[in-house]
Amino acid sequence: MTIPNIKHALPVTRSQDFAAWYQAVISEADLAEESGVRGCMVIRPWGYGIWERIQKLMDARIKAAGVENCYFPLFIPLSFFAEEADHVEGFAKEMAVVTHHRLKSIGGKLVPDPESKLEEPLVVRPTSETVIGKAMARWVQSWRDLPLLVNQWANVVRWEMRTRMFLRTSEFLWQEGHTAHADEADARKETMRALEMYRDFAETELAMPVVAGEKPENERFPGAVATYSIEAMMQDGKALQAGTSHYLGTGFAEAAGIKYQDQEGQQALAHTTSWGVSTRMIGGVIMVHGDDDGLKCPPMIAPHQIVIVPMLRDTDEDAAVLDYCEALAKDLAALDAFREPVRVLLDRKPIKASNKRWAWVKKGAPIVIEVGGRDVAGGNVSVLRRDKLYNEAGKTASIVMPRATFVGEAVNTLRDIQASLYEDAKVRLDANIRDGARDLADLAKAFEGDKPGWVLVEWARPTGGALEKVEQWLKGEKLTLRNAPLDQEPTTGGCIFTGEKAVERVLVGRAY
Amino acid sequence: MTIPNIKHALPVTRSQDFAAWYQAVISEADLAEESGVRGCMVIRPWGYGIWERIQKLMDARIKAAGVENCYFPLFIPLSFFAEEADHVEGFAKEMAVVTHHRLKSIGGKLVPDPESKLEEPLVVRPTSETVIGKAMARWVQSWRDLPLLVNQWANVVRWEMRTRMFLRTSEFLWQEGHTAHADEADARKETMRALEMYRDFAETELAMPVVAGEKPENERFPGAVATYSIEAMMQDGKALQAGTSHYLGTGFAEAAGIKYQDQEGQQALAHTTSWGVSTRMIGGVIMVHGDDDGLKCPPMIAPHQIVIVPMLRDTDEDAAVLDYCEALAKDLAALDAFREPVRVLLDRKPIKASNKRWAWVKKGAPIVIEVGGRDVAGGNVSVLRRDKLYNEAGKTASIVMPRATFVGEAVNTLRDIQASLYEDAKVRLDANIRDGARDLADLAKAFEGDKPGWVLVEWARPTGGALEKVEQWLKGEKLTLRNAPLDQEPTTGGCIFTGEKAVERVLVGRAY
Repeated sequence: MTIPNIKHALPVTRSQDFAAWYQAVISEADLAEESGVRGCMVIRPWGYGIWERIQKLMDARIKAAGVENCYFPLFIPLSFFAEEADHVEGFAKEMAVVTHHRLKSIGGKLVPDPESKLEEPLVVRPTSETVIGKAMARWVQSWRDLPLLVNQWANVVRWEMRTRMFLRTSEFLWQEGHTAHADEADARKETMRALEMYRDFAETELAMPVVAGEKPENERFPGAVATYSIEAMMQDGKALQAGTSHYLGTGFAEAAGIKYQDQEGQQALAHTTSWGVSTRMIGGVIMVHGDDDGLKCPPMIAPHQIVIVPMLRDTDEDAAVLDYCEALAKDLAALDAFREPVRVLLDRKPIKASNKRWAWVKKGAPIVIEVGGRDVAGGNVSVLRRDKLYNEAGKTASIVMPRATFVGEAVNTLRDIQASLYEDAKVRLDANIRDGARDLADLAKAFEGDKPGWVLVEWARPTGGALEKVEQWLKGEKLTLRNAPLDQEPTTGGCIFTGEKAVERVLVGRAY
Repeated sequence: MTIPNIKHALPVTRSQDFAAWYQAVISEADLAEESGVRGCMVIRPWGYGIWERIQKLMDARIKAAGVENCYFPLFIPLSFFAEEADHVEGFAKEMAVVTHHRLKSIGGKLVPDPESKLEEPLVVRPTSETVIGKAMARWVQSWRDLPLLVNQWANVVRWEMRTRMFLRTSEFLWQEGHTAHADEADARKETMRALEMYRDFAETELAMPVVAGEKPENERFPGAVATYSIEAMMQDGKALQAGTSHYLGTGFAEAAGIKYQDQEGQQALAHTTSWGVSTRMIGGVIMVHGDDDGLKCPPMIAPHQIVIVPMLRDTDEDAAVLDYCEALAKDLAALDAFREPVRVLLDRKPIKASNKRWAWVKKGAPIVIEVGGRDVAGGNVSVLRRDKLYNEAGKTASIVMPRATFVGEAVNTLRDIQASLYEDAKVRLDANIRDGARDLADLAKAFEGDKPGWVLVEWARPTGGALEKVEQWLKGEKLTLRNAPLDQEPTTGGCIFTGEKAVERVLVGRAY
């Protein structure tokens, strides 16, 4: 619903400039900011609070699956990568390299002390695959040690030339699951379990509908036998890969020496998997749920679900307003929503109430309550739902209601907001996936204009040189293959790229 | 209580070799291990689980104090340290320095690509003081923005030549609180609040009695106006500084430019504080609560509080044993201890039951339950309390009791274990602090022998050169000043070091 003549809270709207709008949300919602350190951001309390919520809820799912958290070193000796570089073709080389261990003031200038040069440079982990592989090789001796299921929450660094906050930063926060199994079937089951965990998490906790599927060969994690992803559609129609899960076969186990004695006493290689999600998810939440007034934060991941803004006037009345707000906050905090206590904040900052209200609207707090002297006198509260900010006349839709009515309905309202954010995004996703294209010209045409969306095409799943040709053509159109959705309908025609008999359907779209 | 003729679970006892015993606990309890990366450890699931418990409980206290979590960059430009080096005398220079951003294979050898040399080297954060200071300078404009209370959970790196797991590693995990205030009184209040939070946390959650007090001038954080610490006594009598809180005056605010407009419209410098605890606390827990059978993990921070070991025999009886154990686990998990659900693990690993029992004893699980066919038939469980492992005859004190009795008492038992761990350590601490020494010879004599403990001496709190002389003498005796305990009795005599009139009491001891 776009209502004309509304003066929105952000300096730029989605339709004016989507990329600038994205930056504006991050800035105006106090999610993050530039740090002055190349490619690294400062994640501010509201942004970090969302990450803490994601961590907490995802961690509960990971632990429920029997996976145990560990912590591995930040630094990885260069030699570990030499091994990997040998056996992995698409080895990524943009990494931060530590070469010295001391600063020294020489001639009045602070420099890396030449005498502190490391014999072997250390790489700041871009992923912990190699160092965890070596640990697994120590920990796995017998079939009794399998499956071995570990996870790590950590910061990782991949030197990026063009960065964008949350989506692509040199340092980012993530979790990386690494598992070793006795056979392929068990490892593939774990790969799909992690993928399904991510799909359900994205749709439930983040209210962000996604398509789960297998990546084509050219988009696989280097060295993986199979890579799966969840893909979310941003409001500009582009795809965001929001989580991946890899079946790695025995290649990584061979490189790291993860061997075990099976029940017959024979040595065998383990089959491994890895899977991860990162702070990138927050970028997805912004671009799926944001509007021209800022973020709309799904209640399940909102650091504060209900914010109470007292309208103070530096009069004697203020004490009564604050008492009323405190009692309200207490009653709300005693409720449970989504099987956790409701998260309420009474915002006491010495700032004008209307400024506070708009600050919370921009941050996307699901419900903002305002309480003034008149509300106290009438036993009411003024309720603003972030997902229904304006009424049909284009005014902010603040509704005065009895305090008891609001408290009685608060949990349902939070549930309703969570559900409506999902529904809106789901309708948009479904409406913007076009099924099929007659030919390549038709496919290219589908991406003309402002909101391209995705096209689901049938293809023959070409490999090698044939796939390279497909990739070349797509690149010319600024398109990519996203994934081949799981549980898809059987193909009926020919491959749009090669003309051969199609074997599956694959999503084509622009991507972040 | 030391009972002769017990064959303990560890290969080395505390009295044989305390340092070797410490390493043995870490290894046998699967807490951590060498990573193959210099100075960095792998924290294994049981050790990391303890850290997760510490994080969760400390984080709740930090949030309850109104402090908000953020995340700041791993890398700090070298120039930030140049500023700090200018105004801080004792500037620590052993740090990991990133100088290149790419690896390249040159002549078949993987090396830092010379073309990727950074214009300005980046330092891996040894603490985030400088980068947080710069952020605060952006965030603080008016008195309305104060106090500004932020905290970060992060990994930090200080290049260490001699490392010891958990106590001193090149990379470690910690939280660092950084706050800015309008005036000295408010900043000092926050400094003491954080110190008291640490004291209460150590004594309540970790069951580790500590002495909270002010560090003497020579032990201050470089640049701080006042540094406070909590000091815990290890079983070898040495002190472990387990947490620090600093009042930084306006020096850091001046360096970083943290200024605000006060209510009168004048520009003023903020007063700042910082405070932190780290994975070092786990080293303290080991050395305070461990015994010759491994760790005794306080129930509040034990990842699993009750472990159920089914005694399976590969017979038809096994199914009934497992059913019985599952129902027991369910009943226990429905209980609350320390205001959280009881953490129960049913250990199903395909390993001999007696091996599992000893593995959990070494890990320090507070209660280990064994269930065999006979227990099922009799409606019993066999209960082993980690803090009462042996009976008077020197046998493991496993007690068979009705299942209902155990379940009914389980929460009280956990509380009792938490309390008794504290009591034991408190008795030891009190017994090993000697009050006063006649002269320096007497002081030195107090530290002869195996278990030195600490001595509380009256001193004149000398500064400058006089303090340096004290430090020199102490160093010769391998002693250090720990802290001047808070709430101490008035002094009555002269300074043991200078002969002047004493102004306070200070603890002297050996330290980690």
